[in-house]
Amino acid sequence: MKKLLLIVSCLIAATTSFAQQASTWIWYPGDFEVWLSNDMQNRRTERGTFFPPFWKMDSHYVLVEFNKAFDLPEADEIAIHAEGKYNVKVNGKMLPGMPSKVKLEKGKQQINIKVYNQAHVPALYVTGKYVQTDKEWLATFEDKEWIDETGKASDASGTTYVKVGYWNMDDPNEKPSQFKLPTRPERAVSKTPHDKGFLVDFGKNTFGFLTLHKLQGEGGLNIYYGESKEEALATETCETLDLLDVSTPSAQDSTLELSKAFRYVYIEPKGNVQFDEVSMQYEYLPVEDRGMFRSSDEELNKIWDVAKYTMELTSREFYIDGIKRDRWIWSGDAYQSYAMNYYLGFDSETVKRTILALRGKEPTITHINTIMDYTFYWFLSIYDYYRYTGDKEFIESVYPRMQTLMEFCLNRRNKDGLMEGLSGDWVFIDWAEGLSKKGEVSFEQLLLCRSLETMALCADLLQIPEDQDFYAKEAKALKDKFFHFYWNDHKTAFVHSRIDGKQTDEVTRYTNMFAIFFDYLSAEQQQGVKKNVLLNDNVKKIMTPYMRYYELEALCALGEKDYVMDQIKSYWGGMLQLGATTFWEEYNPEKEGAEHYTMYGREFGKSLCHSWGASPIYLLGKYYLGVEPTSAGYETYTIAPYLASQEWMEGKVPTPAGEIELHVSKSKIKVKSPIGKGTLKINSTSLPRTNHGQVKKVSENTYTLELEKGIDYEVEYKG
Amino acid sequence: MKKLLLIVSCLIAATTSFAQQASTWIWYPGDFEVWLSNDMQNRRTERGTFFPPFWKMDSHYVLVEFNKAFDLPEADEIAIHAEGKYNVKVNGKMLPGMPSKVKLEKGKQQINIKVYNQAHVPALYVTGKYVQTDKEWLATFEDKEWIDETGKASDASGTTYVKVGYWNMDDPNEKPSQFKLPTRPERAVSKTPHDKGFLVDFGKNTFGFLTLHKLQGEGGLNIYYGESKEEALATETCETLDLLDVSTPSAQDSTLELSKAFRYVYIEPKGNVQFDEVSMQYEYLPVEDRGMFRSSDEELNKIWDVAKYTMELTSREFYIDGIKRDRWIWSGDAYQSYAMNYYLGFDSETVKRTILALRGKEPTITHINTIMDYTFYWFLSIYDYYRYTGDKEFIESVYPRMQTLMEFCLNRRNKDGLMEGLSGDWVFIDWAEGLSKKGEVSFEQLLLCRSLETMALCADLLQIPEDQDFYAKEAKALKDKFFHFYWNDHKTAFVHSRIDGKQTDEVTRYTNMFAIFFDYLSAEQQQGVKKNVLLNDNVKKIMTPYMRYYELEALCALGEKDYVMDQIKSYWGGMLQLGATTFWEEYNPEKEGAEHYTMYGREFGKSLCHSWGASPIYLLGKYYLGVEPTSAGYETYTIAPYLASQEWMEGKVPTPAGEIELHVSKSKIKVKSPIGKGTLKINSTSLPRTNHGQVKKVSENTYTLELEKGIDYEVEYKG
Repeated sequence: MKKLLLIVSCLIAATTSFAQQASTWIWYPGDFEVWLSNDMQNRRTERGTFFPPFWKMDSHYVLVEFNKAFDLPEADEIAIHAEGKYNVKVNGKMLPGMPSKVKLEKGKQQINIKVYNQAHVPALYVTGKYVQTDKEWLATFEDKEWIDETGKASDASGTTYVKVGYWNMDDPNEKPSQFKLPTRPERAVSKTPHDKGFLVDFGKNTFGFLTLHKLQGEGGLNIYYGESKEEALATETCETLDLLDVSTPSAQDSTLELSKAFRYVYIEPKGNVQFDEVSMQYEYLPVEDRGMFRSSDEELNKIWDVAKYTMELTSREFYIDGIKRDRWIWSGDAYQSYAMNYYLGFDSETVKRTILALRGKEPTITHINTIMDYTFYWFLSIYDYYRYTGDKEFIESVYPRMQTLMEFCLNRRNKDGLMEGLSGDWVFIDWAEGLSKKGEVSFEQLLLCRSLETMALCADLLQIPEDQDFYAKEAKALKDKFFHFYWNDHKTAFVHSRIDGKQTDEVTRYTNMFAIFFDYLSAEQQQGVKKNVLLNDNVKKIMTPYMRYYELEALCALGEKDYVMDQIKSYWGGMLQLGATTFWEEYNPEKEGAEHYTMYGREFGKSLCHSWGASPIYLLGKYYLGVEPTSAGYETYTIAPYLASQEWMEGKVPTPAGEIELHVSKSKIKVKSPIGKGTLKINSTSLPRTNHGQVKKVSENTYTLELEKGIDYEVEYKG
Repeated sequence: MKKLLLIVSCLIAATTSFAQQASTWIWYPGDFEVWLSNDMQNRRTERGTFFPPFWKMDSHYVLVEFNKAFDLPEADEIAIHAEGKYNVKVNGKMLPGMPSKVKLEKGKQQINIKVYNQAHVPALYVTGKYVQTDKEWLATFEDKEWIDETGKASDASGTTYVKVGYWNMDDPNEKPSQFKLPTRPERAVSKTPHDKGFLVDFGKNTFGFLTLHKLQGEGGLNIYYGESKEEALATETCETLDLLDVSTPSAQDSTLELSKAFRYVYIEPKGNVQFDEVSMQYEYLPVEDRGMFRSSDEELNKIWDVAKYTMELTSREFYIDGIKRDRWIWSGDAYQSYAMNYYLGFDSETVKRTILALRGKEPTITHINTIMDYTFYWFLSIYDYYRYTGDKEFIESVYPRMQTLMEFCLNRRNKDGLMEGLSGDWVFIDWAEGLSKKGEVSFEQLLLCRSLETMALCADLLQIPEDQDFYAKEAKALKDKFFHFYWNDHKTAFVHSRIDGKQTDEVTRYTNMFAIFFDYLSAEQQQGVKKNVLLNDNVKKIMTPYMRYYELEALCALGEKDYVMDQIKSYWGGMLQLGATTFWEEYNPEKEGAEHYTMYGREFGKSLCHSWGASPIYLLGKYYLGVEPTSAGYETYTIAPYLASQEWMEGKVPTPAGEIELHVSKSKIKVKSPIGKGTLKINSTSLPRTNHGQVKKVSENTYTLELEKGIDYEVEYKG
């Protein structure tokens, strides 16, 4: 009787496990991302001219074999959908033709399906009662299955199988090659006759496809887009435009083919062309609405809202830089989008897609985006992703690509073991006039050092001790060198660079501020850097929100949260006061009027909706709501709320299991978490009172409360 | 006056040089070849099932920049055709839109055009009075042209430009992506009712698309193809078939979509389907008819004709193995096709296409076709190509890919510096039952050694002394090892392999015969090998025409031309006596009837039209007509005719400048050459008489005559 029961329960277990699965489209990991990013990044136009990237674009494997072994509790029939020509083997035997239905017998069934597609990514969707394509399938781009003279197949000992790639494409009829972001119609707020045409205002910066209602006539349409009114009206210098021929005898609503970024659109009809209303199809990435921030400070709330909208606009097929101009995936920019995302949509799929698209394929012959620093951010992004999500599977799958990219970097070091820009390398750091890129820049060594530490962490996580040891040693050696070559005791700061083997005299903010939040400095060194660099107006100021992000992060890490709050309000608030509806690529408060729109020597070169402009989301979530994981995936985390100039604030911070909810006033903290073990840190002049758990005193005016998940905590304190 | 004249003549020179150029489609070198070979190699079916290769298939670069600088004697207007989205820069300035016509001013004009295409190869065709796309244009897959914060473009110091790829696509309307081989209609010789359908005979093995005339009805057609009658009628075991649905109310001529190889076709109609005649669209590569051989021996002439037809059928988009089954590009097979081609069509473009397709793209992670020996033949093929054609440009363009492939090989050597099959490597050598692939096989070391010598030769040719030195040293070291490890004085032969550091006892023909024509042996060693291996029936016989090629070449090199002629007549003649209309993949005279068609454990597994079956073309051209270049491109060459059992022979051997024509009887040699300096070698018992030049005595019964091009020589001699 016992035996029978066991069998039954096994069967139930197997069936249950089978039933939990849903089919999804699968492909060789990274290939859809490479293919889709090619498509997206080659959509850029500049004044109607195709404007592609300047780095190597890769391609998918055109021939991929997918396989998985099943042990079926009963016979099954599977339906096969594939993007491309394919063949099917069951238990090593090739089936005739290209079957769309296959019957499988009960018991062990090894399914191998080989798909060829040159134009699109070979992709597979199989569904049956027990057999489904899911993330556990394996794939290879060379099965090496030859047969010898007797007809015997070779073994597969030399074949490398990896787990497949997938996203959320669960419908067999929605093919990966047909993927498009969704759109929804949005109305313009005004359409005004202007000069030879009409000026249309959508009320805020936006992105999508323009729709002209009741378009009719013979002639043309000249359409000039502007993130500002000035730009839309500057027909000779606006960054994007469409010059269209029109031949539409009867009135019809027409939507343009190429998406654009704009708040204003200036439309000049030619010939007898007429149209009625102008609307748009707003194109967006569906992301769950999870992170939230509200406070007693309406300006701050507005900053958060505009940052959120900026992030929404720049989160697309991938995290892109800005919506008007490049619309490319830049590693340094994306690195910040990931961080903001952890405090907003917690959209892990878009992080992974972006990381994979940036990495591209072998051979590795150039830095990511050709930029040395951008290669290093790529490494850093992976461990960050793990820290917030706890997704070890992704680290496992991307680790081989990390190794080869690190090998590329290490092979480019000079005789002193330092990295300097070789022919074709772009040492970027920041958009800043006169910033020296000569010799061995300290900033690059610092990022390489951190990247090596990341490699060691990942190797440790994947339990590859020899790798862990190798990378840790390299990191240690480089860190020693870094201090030896760049730290200047006299300046109590790192210098900017080393040229011809000698320290240069210049001090810039970059290396110094990163060293702070990488926690490379002693308390004394930190104070020196703070005083002599970060709070020293004689050191060249940072003008981009991109590096502002790190500067403010460093100051937060140094406890200067009131100062940072002032900075947030004045810098981002400054853009709002100028009418910004999205945050900019660069902001210099000293400029005036349309001067703000210039960049790269072009009148409207500046992007007015740039992902790196959205960093208040990150700063407010991490340093004011104060939520941060301390082990992977929020298994443990800290909540150290900091009420700066506000009366109260509240918010939600997403985690893998739901949102941590927080309300903070000057005397009370309410908090509830769906996950792990949290530590609430409270600054209070007397022992705080809690409705649950026990407050511990850590030091004078500092207390902690250990949080269990699912409990509504209310803590009263004296701020 | 003088100055004016000078200017005029310069202008004329420039204009002339411009006018000589014709436009042609260009692409990143190797990319069209990779793309086209993907397409071709994924057309294989086995009994209606898609049957793709098992090795890594590469892809083209999706984004390519093309450029060339011109100095125009007057204004020009160019028309631009591109496969893909593109943009155009003239003298660094981007033009608006995607212009199909561009006006260029007189003087210096730098044209950069960037083309993006995911599905097909980015290709470009530009034509004007002075500006044309030709092989002198440059291309890169990453121009690394970023702009700094001031709008200044980076320099291109880190950008690698290479000369473009091209073929013969000179018509702007015939796009590379649309490329198809031409076809011509061919009639069947008979159509006979058989069983439930009809058996159609095309009289000889052929390749193309079946046409059913006046096809009509509702139902289906089951079409079974056979290189033999037995195969076409074996509906359960024939290698290729088409099972088609038919729904054609009114009679129409229908041509099938997929090409097949066949002499016989058995067609079973289903339902009320009817058809009239059956014909075919013969698909072929247009190759000039250049090489020729005729003699007093009709059997030998037939062998040459059938070899020529076999070569015609297997010369397609690339040199493939056989027409029925794989239709893939195999490096070992192609290596022989190249050699035959030098004595037949001298079709350098197909040699280059095949070499490029085989090499594919980086990263190099597997042997070519996964086969170790096939990697080595690839190296050997390149210097051979240079020797016959003198095309140094190709060597220059392919050299970097040779270097990386050799690096891959050298990195796979074991601790003794020898190559053995690693996981996933196929050590092939030959289809031969029981042939050991264990340990370090001597044959592979020999081929690696020859490959290293090839690298040294190419490095020397390209004047890269450090490379030449490196490869020559590696070759020398390996050659020493090769003799040390494998030569057995007792056996006066090389042994087959080394296992666990010890010489094995077995002697096979492969290493020994290659060592002969690689000229690695002393006269004494040669005689030992000849006696103890090549003419020793106790050493396992070779059954494939593939290795027969090398065996007979070795015997020719040893002067055994009468013996080889007997072998040619009995082996290839043997196939003819069995009714072969094309030469086979394998021939064992001891088999009978339909036994001949079996291979790989399948009843009709054997290919009856296999390129490596055509080697008499090569042997007759090189060792009987006796024509061979002694320096690149026939700058110098020898003609050493050898009349074996024939009364007379005549022939043409193609060179880069036309054909060497030769007629040889027992008392007279007539020869005329369009190129270089030749040396006619005459065996004669007395001083030959010539109508031109002067015969020199070299040794007893051996004379030479130095040949000038363009002269009709007639030499009388005593054979």
